Amino acid sequence: MALVNENYLRNSGLHCFEEAEKRVNAYKLLHPSVKLFCLDNPNRSLQLIPEIVQTLHKTIDDTINPEIFRKDSSIRGCDFLIDKILKEYRAIGVSLNKESVFINDGSNSDIENIGYVLGRDNIIAITDPVHPLYENAAILSGRGSAIGGDSEWSNIIRIKCSEENGFLPQLPREKADILFISNPGNVTGTVLNRTELKKWVDYATKNKSLIVYDASYKAYIKEGDVPKSIYEIRGAKKVAVEIHSFSSIFGSSAFHCGYSVFPSELQVYTELGDEVSLNKLWTKRVVSFTNGSSYVMQRAAEAIFSRKGKSEIAELVNYYSINASLIREELLSFGWKVYGGVNSPYIWFKIPVDLPSWKYFTQLLYEAHIVSIPGIAFGDSNDGYMGFSAFGDRTDIINALKKLKSTQSSNF
Amino acid sequence: MALVNENYLRNSGLHCFEEAEKRVNAYKLLHPSVKLFCLDNPNRSLQLIPEIVQTLHKTIDDTINPEIFRKDSSIRGCDFLIDKILKEYRAIGVSLNKESVFINDGSNSDIENIGYVLGRDNIIAITDPVHPLYENAAILSGRGSAIGGDSEWSNIIRIKCSEENGFLPQLPREKADILFISNPGNVTGTVLNRTELKKWVDYATKNKSLIVYDASYKAYIKEGDVPKSIYEIRGAKKVAVEIHSFSSIFGSSAFHCGYSVFPSELQVYTELGDEVSLNKLWTKRVVSFTNGSSYVMQRAAEAIFSRKGKSEIAELVNYYSINASLIREELLSFGWKVYGGVNSPYIWFKIPVDLPSWKYFTQLLYEAHIVSIPGIAFGDSNDGYMGFSAFGDRTDIINALKKLKSTQSSNF
Repeated sequence: MALVNENYLRNSGLHCFEEAEKRVNAYKLLHPSVKLFCLDNPNRSLQLIPEIVQTLHKTIDDTINPEIFRKDSSIRGCDFLIDKILKEYRAIGVSLNKESVFINDGSNSDIENIGYVLGRDNIIAITDPVHPLYENAAILSGRGSAIGGDSEWSNIIRIKCSEENGFLPQLPREKADILFISNPGNVTGTVLNRTELKKWVDYATKNKSLIVYDASYKAYIKEGDVPKSIYEIRGAKKVAVEIHSFSSIFGSSAFHCGYSVFPSELQVYTELGDEVSLNKLWTKRVVSFTNGSSYVMQRAAEAIFSRKGKSEIAELVNYYSINASLIREELLSFGWKVYGGVNSPYIWFKIPVDLPSWKYFTQLLYEAHIVSIPGIAFGDSNDGYMGFSAFGDRTDIINALKKLKSTQSSNF
Repeated sequence: MALVNENYLRNSGLHCFEEAEKRVNAYKLLHPSVKLFCLDNPNRSLQLIPEIVQTLHKTIDDTINPEIFRKDSSIRGCDFLIDKILKEYRAIGVSLNKESVFINDGSNSDIENIGYVLGRDNIIAITDPVHPLYENAAILSGRGSAIGGDSEWSNIIRIKCSEENGFLPQLPREKADILFISNPGNVTGTVLNRTELKKWVDYATKNKSLIVYDASYKAYIKEGDVPKSIYEIRGAKKVAVEIHSFSSIFGSSAFHCGYSVFPSELQVYTELGDEVSLNKLWTKRVVSFTNGSSYVMQRAAEAIFSRKGKSEIAELVNYYSINASLIREELLSFGWKVYGGVNSPYIWFKIPVDLPSWKYFTQLLYEAHIVSIPGIAFGDSNDGYMGFSAFGDRTDIINALKKLKSTQSSNF
């Protein structure tokens, strides 16, 4: 009898996104002529940068020469791309060897799958709010042992981020074996500066913990005291994996490419306390369970490292950053409590009225025609908060804010 | 302390491919001017078909319209491609609903990862010979409990294929919960016809087992009594997952796209015996742990369903099929024992001299300049066998066979 992994029968936090989609679709059906402003969606609204489009055309033409693929086909990633990534690290004073870098098909899958090379008895710390994928991965891989129904788990620690600490993740008081952090924070948009991040590295060093550092939105960092890589902190190579996604910059559904860094210095442990190279284990996983990123996507990713590509990407990032500022400033001008939006395309805010996030989601949808991100999607305790994303067309965002302002002055 | 998944410290069957690469590289270093004939490699030698190249150019230009991506972005796959796949199934009399199909990034990753939605206590049956990835996935996910060192496992059944049964997989005598089969067989190139495959479906129905059916090479099936899909067999939808890869046809390292079918009728079980829809669990996994296949790749895959695409693919498959026939006929003319190569691009043969496969690998390399596939890579008991792949340039293959014939008449 084929048995199921019964962890898959447990609740999944992802249902919130489906719920949001359902509500939006219902609204569209009832109001087909209303233009909605999507401040929820990580899908980009701008076209791909010209340098990528040109590179793609060239790459497609290169497929006429099959030798090119054969030479470059490694499931870990192509040298031409890895070399560019290493050079970018060197520019911020981080030296890594070639074997440290794995090209992936976007950051999500590596963040979710890293648990598979780690033991099941690890205590996992995730922030709160957190993207539901993090907790979901822990639960589905059997790391969530229920203690209080489906929403509390014995070996998952939630690091509460709140107004009191400016929605910045604080180190857990308990001992955690694996710590997941995103910097800039996915959804809250807040950032850990060098001093703060050093505390995390020191904690991990002391406790022999592993930090899984999601740097997907690093392109949006503007402030100089926020590191672009955790490896800027001394000692981090021994305790941290860094995961990055090109898709987060240049159009997620058209492209799937990113990279993960597993430095050769990075150690994890057997139950007897013996050191094991996590890089070696990850190599085994990548070769066994993935197909890697396709040659075409890797060439597209390489294009963003050219002089022209860099300048076009900077322009794109700047465009979304200005969007974020516009949103942030407008919400602040309402007198709302606002987080993020400075070093990040995400803005997190306290719901200005006494409504839970689903009700406010519906109110924003029906009265301001804005699709938002309900706080509860990132954990039950965030029901009083809401998220906006700045990945949209400028004019749409300006119009959305105008509409919001008008409703705001009346009944919001 | 960050603990490792200690299953990753166990032996991996994949080292054979690294070993082969090392030997070939050493040879190249010593003999830089010798042209080697690669009869080992699943990387294609022909260029992408024109229909795909044209479609890719068009798709890249379409990226100027971001609405296209937004509309089509589903992590399960784009409707335009799923519709074509369903139509192809209907043409062979198989009716499936849209929700059954998941677009993946190539068949390997789904075959390896399916274990994660299944319980750990399942008894798994794999063929022998088998691609080492199958066993590897079972071991790394903790399903291999060692009984006799690293090469024997208490809950993995190996279905011995041998000369006696024409290297056709036979049903296990024991009760297996999960059965992995590829048809045409990956590496042996042998095929199960309708009558044979029906026995597998009946076995699975009777035992409530799950068949994971790898149909990656179905494009190479010529003989009418070999099904192109397991769903041509009555009852199969209730017991089988079917996995297919477009990459297996049209150039693996340039492209990553395939699909998996989890019919809504397909059931697996909880320990208490309750039925669970595997489709629902797989949806959860796909959404949680993968990024899906990129829009660009899905458009490329769609191109092979157009009239022009179909005809170009048929030509490509025919080219490799003729290569396979040439290899098969030549080896048979030497009086060797040869399997596969009729409905498959793979040829499997008994080493004609008393040598283990690594020694014969080296002999082929040094004397006939042929890179081959050592039988031992597919399980210890296959050390007396060897594999060739027909994915190469026709002239190279003809020259390789000539060279083999000349060495053959002297000292082989």
